[in-house]
Amino acid sequence: MSDARAITELAKRRGFFFGANESYGGVAGFYTFGPEGAALKRNVEAAWRDRFTVREGNDEIEAPTIMPEPVFEASGHLDGFDDMLVECGECGESHRADHLVEDASDVEEAESLPIPEVEELVAEYEIACPSCGAALAGRSIEEFNLMFATAIGPGSGQPGYLRPETAQGIFVEFPRLKEYARNKLPFGVTQIGRAYRNEISPRKGIVRTREFTQAELEQFVDPDDDEPPLDRVADVSLRLYPADEQEDPDGEYVEATVAEAVEEGIVASDWVAYYLGVAREWYDRIGVDGDRFRFRQHLPGERAHYAADCWDAESEVSGAAGDLADPTAGDWIEIAGFAYRGDYDLSKHAEHADDDFTVFEQYDEPRTVERAVADPDMSVLGPEFGGRAGDVADALRALAERDPSAFDGDEVTVEVDGEAVTVDSAVANFRIEERTEAGEHVTPHVVEPSFGVDRTVYTLIAHGYDHDLIDGEERTYLSLSPEVAPTDVAVFPLVSDGALETLAADVVADLRAAGLSVAHDDSGNIGRRYRRQDEVGTPLSVTVDHESVEETPATVTVRDRDTTAQVRVPVDELATELERVLESGGSFDALLADYDRVETDVTRT
Amino acid sequence: MSDARAITELAKRRGFFFGANESYGGVAGFYTFGPEGAALKRNVEAAWRDRFTVREGNDEIEAPTIMPEPVFEASGHLDGFDDMLVECGECGESHRADHLVEDASDVEEAESLPIPEVEELVAEYEIACPSCGAALAGRSIEEFNLMFATAIGPGSGQPGYLRPETAQGIFVEFPRLKEYARNKLPFGVTQIGRAYRNEISPRKGIVRTREFTQAELEQFVDPDDDEPPLDRVADVSLRLYPADEQEDPDGEYVEATVAEAVEEGIVASDWVAYYLGVAREWYDRIGVDGDRFRFRQHLPGERAHYAADCWDAESEVSGAAGDLADPTAGDWIEIAGFAYRGDYDLSKHAEHADDDFTVFEQYDEPRTVERAVADPDMSVLGPEFGGRAGDVADALRALAERDPSAFDGDEVTVEVDGEAVTVDSAVANFRIEERTEAGEHVTPHVVEPSFGVDRTVYTLIAHGYDHDLIDGEERTYLSLSPEVAPTDVAVFPLVSDGALETLAADVVADLRAAGLSVAHDDSGNIGRRYRRQDEVGTPLSVTVDHESVEETPATVTVRDRDTTAQVRVPVDELATELERVLESGGSFDALLADYDRVETDVTRT
Repeated sequence: MSDARAITELAKRRGFFFGANESYGGVAGFYTFGPEGAALKRNVEAAWRDRFTVREGNDEIEAPTIMPEPVFEASGHLDGFDDMLVECGECGESHRADHLVEDASDVEEAESLPIPEVEELVAEYEIACPSCGAALAGRSIEEFNLMFATAIGPGSGQPGYLRPETAQGIFVEFPRLKEYARNKLPFGVTQIGRAYRNEISPRKGIVRTREFTQAELEQFVDPDDDEPPLDRVADVSLRLYPADEQEDPDGEYVEATVAEAVEEGIVASDWVAYYLGVAREWYDRIGVDGDRFRFRQHLPGERAHYAADCWDAESEVSGAAGDLADPTAGDWIEIAGFAYRGDYDLSKHAEHADDDFTVFEQYDEPRTVERAVADPDMSVLGPEFGGRAGDVADALRALAERDPSAFDGDEVTVEVDGEAVTVDSAVANFRIEERTEAGEHVTPHVVEPSFGVDRTVYTLIAHGYDHDLIDGEERTYLSLSPEVAPTDVAVFPLVSDGALETLAADVVADLRAAGLSVAHDDSGNIGRRYRRQDEVGTPLSVTVDHESVEETPATVTVRDRDTTAQVRVPVDELATELERVLESGGSFDALLADYDRVETDVTRT
Repeated sequence: MSDARAITELAKRRGFFFGANESYGGVAGFYTFGPEGAALKRNVEAAWRDRFTVREGNDEIEAPTIMPEPVFEASGHLDGFDDMLVECGECGESHRADHLVEDASDVEEAESLPIPEVEELVAEYEIACPSCGAALAGRSIEEFNLMFATAIGPGSGQPGYLRPETAQGIFVEFPRLKEYARNKLPFGVTQIGRAYRNEISPRKGIVRTREFTQAELEQFVDPDDDEPPLDRVADVSLRLYPADEQEDPDGEYVEATVAEAVEEGIVASDWVAYYLGVAREWYDRIGVDGDRFRFRQHLPGERAHYAADCWDAESEVSGAAGDLADPTAGDWIEIAGFAYRGDYDLSKHAEHADDDFTVFEQYDEPRTVERAVADPDMSVLGPEFGGRAGDVADALRALAERDPSAFDGDEVTVEVDGEAVTVDSAVANFRIEERTEAGEHVTPHVVEPSFGVDRTVYTLIAHGYDHDLIDGEERTYLSLSPEVAPTDVAVFPLVSDGALETLAADVVADLRAAGLSVAHDDSGNIGRRYRRQDEVGTPLSVTVDHESVEETPATVTVRDRDTTAQVRVPVDELATELERVLESGGSFDALLADYDRVETDVTRT
């Protein structure tokens, strides 16, 4: 069984995640997180919030998932957020044409090709329908918009869409958010929440779903003035896979610190480099395997036209023992993106919405500037143009700002309602004024670290997934970091016995009171209970045995998930000792040094 | 300004919540939680999770918000989840007919009346369109389904809906969830997430929105065997407003403990009574004002037909100094519902879905039971019925289980493919067998405490909203409990001064390292900074002043939000002392007892 299948099987059996609505046959692309998976996911979100919101001093908001159509006219999603759809003429099944082409040929990033070219490739490679085998050559490919549409309110309603990214909920509220940030750049706003993409044919299980959770940070910066605190992450090592190395058949990874990546211009934006460093540290912290992780730069064809630079964080999830130094081997999935988006987002909303998407930045001291102004003589324009006089005056004022030289001659011409109107320059009353200005309006640039929470959860399971032999029998365990593990500690009475069960219940209550998340399991034999906790990644298990209730003070055994080593610890020291292990990232060494090791006849190989 | 308007204004100005997408004119019924509101909401969710998931030993899951149509055919939402829609013939605006009737008449719960009756009431009370004033008499009223519809996948797609409650995501996965609970009743499953209702005309701001957050608990119980742990909440006092008191013009509240409410049969279900007690304690803990809180029983017309008993938790949010002992006065909103739903949910899904929605309950010891069985003689049926012999045999077996007396005569008749088939009774080989059975399949009953998170957040703001006079100037402050307040402590340097700013930054870092949520504010005069924190409910403010940096060890002042009292505390004791205040629910008494009070010339009245 491949790792991917084994993980999917484990995820369902143990309650990490499973296809939703399977009692009703299921619907592709929708997954439910069971008790273990929901806890793991919450812990990942909490760790992200701690790092990207709290410790960065950013603000977190929660916006609705349904947004009205004009938002997506502005953002470009209504027109541009499409996939290539080809429908089989025989069976009627729909497929992503670019994926079919990529599977059948050496073409990469077929998504970035024009439709006619993809249609030609379908014919050239004689691509058949994956469902029924009929030829797809000659079928037309259509753009399919990936937003889920709905109608808001009764009757035909007002068109609305489920947001394809949480980011738009931040951008549209920028005029308010800047006030909460007291109109001072730079500031960051984060959001963790659901986003939706109506994939044509979802595949790869929980990696590509139609409903998923994003954790996004929109960092608003003044492009001229603001610098990130690069020194905080200057020494963090990055495994980078730049675009030119990807285009080279012998391309290799570039290993560089954040400081080197900036100095050598490998990463173009300081802000992007800063967040690559922060992210690299964060992924380490939550348990992503550094050997199966890289930052891949977008190829020119992948990148949105407005994005100056864009890198994806990718993790390798196949578990195959391939050559991890070979960038072209393995199964890499995107788990985050880091984009320098310029002023694209706020400028687009400023164009489409009726609000101010700039920040007024005060100068250190007021500046005197020259401004060209027109102050048209209405006593002349009024009689001459009647009801249109106001429009003519406005056009003259706008022209003065835009092109002062237009007023050099005797006459000046402006366009009003598509018609050329000429007036005497004197009437325009054109002049250069000196003005004292306290500051200027800046449209902030946006740096966007955007994380896929579900894929991060999947990566943690894939990287934690491990086997060994216990007494010759294969054991599966999840080596999850204590910060994200669904449960901190499991407590078992060794057998069904009044005294053992009472003490176990007391231990559970004590540990919960100390703030630990505790599983209390008294069903099945002890070996089976250990395996169950090993499979859901519980770092520590506590067993109440006969010795426990015979000794004064009472003691219990504590078992380390990964090594299965056990020590005996007095109950009144238990909470403190377990917290020490969990806070150290799960190291059992201190307990092995300070307490008696329990010799078991279990052999681990 | 009424409290409701003042709260809405404060909520927008300070970043609790505001109408979403206002830059695009807004869409009724959608709100965004700003930085303060999102933090308050998260804290409410965490407190709910601690009480209703962790401490009850329940499991939490996360299901998709989009679900396929068959789920809602089963749940009854596709047919029955409607509001009464009347469209104005003049202006085309849509309204909820039942609300118009309630506003114009003494009729209550018009929702529960048949449509023709509501149409008559519209005519009788000469109700006019609230938008344009045109008469609505004679306009037909239609059922409008409140689910947001969408299409999943390309082409015409598969119909899907945004879930109108989180509960369905739990019910449909019951066949898996019972396995994680090791097939043992009772067990509870919780979910916190978005739900959606396409209200015809949303009103009351954030109280009735189209997208909202629920925290729901589905408690699965064996109706014959399982009892709640009533003793844990037996002494909790409940203010109850039973249906009969609501129907009596002089009706009054009934004050009873949980134990009394059960003994006297005021609350019919022990499980419902248990959760009323748990909820009452929880609302106290997070800061809901007990004098502006009650449990109101559903009137017979309000209740779903399958719900044996149903109570709402309601809070009073007008802030008007009315007679809180008069149940008919004040502005009460539903903030939670507690329903005994019987086996309705799981039975409906068992009917519609292809899965097992029962739990197999093992008997303490195996029981011997008699079963009527038919074991047809295929050597006779085969030659006689050919290809239909198998169907005839199946029909005989089914008949034996259903109606053993049918085999009393010489012949027995069954229906196969709509045709009557008669065989000799002897061929059916009918007999009564004794069988040993290990247990039985039980369809669990559901007890559902369901909380509205947004309305809880609103209630906390409304109940915490207060005024006083500081030096004769009115001050507004939010008296939020420390457990839910968006920020634990604010830190200010008194003035812009290097030494003060450095010490303030150190204090901020120390407090954050101790796990506190800290606001760091150095803009504006100190009075304005205090007001800002008072308005967002920050329990404690720390100021670094000139004395701070002159003294060894350094000291800072700590200010209590509600009383504005201040004490001076050494920096190295600060984190511990602040935690002590926060953990005690915000009481400043210990600090006043242990430290020097700072005499300010501020008078509070």
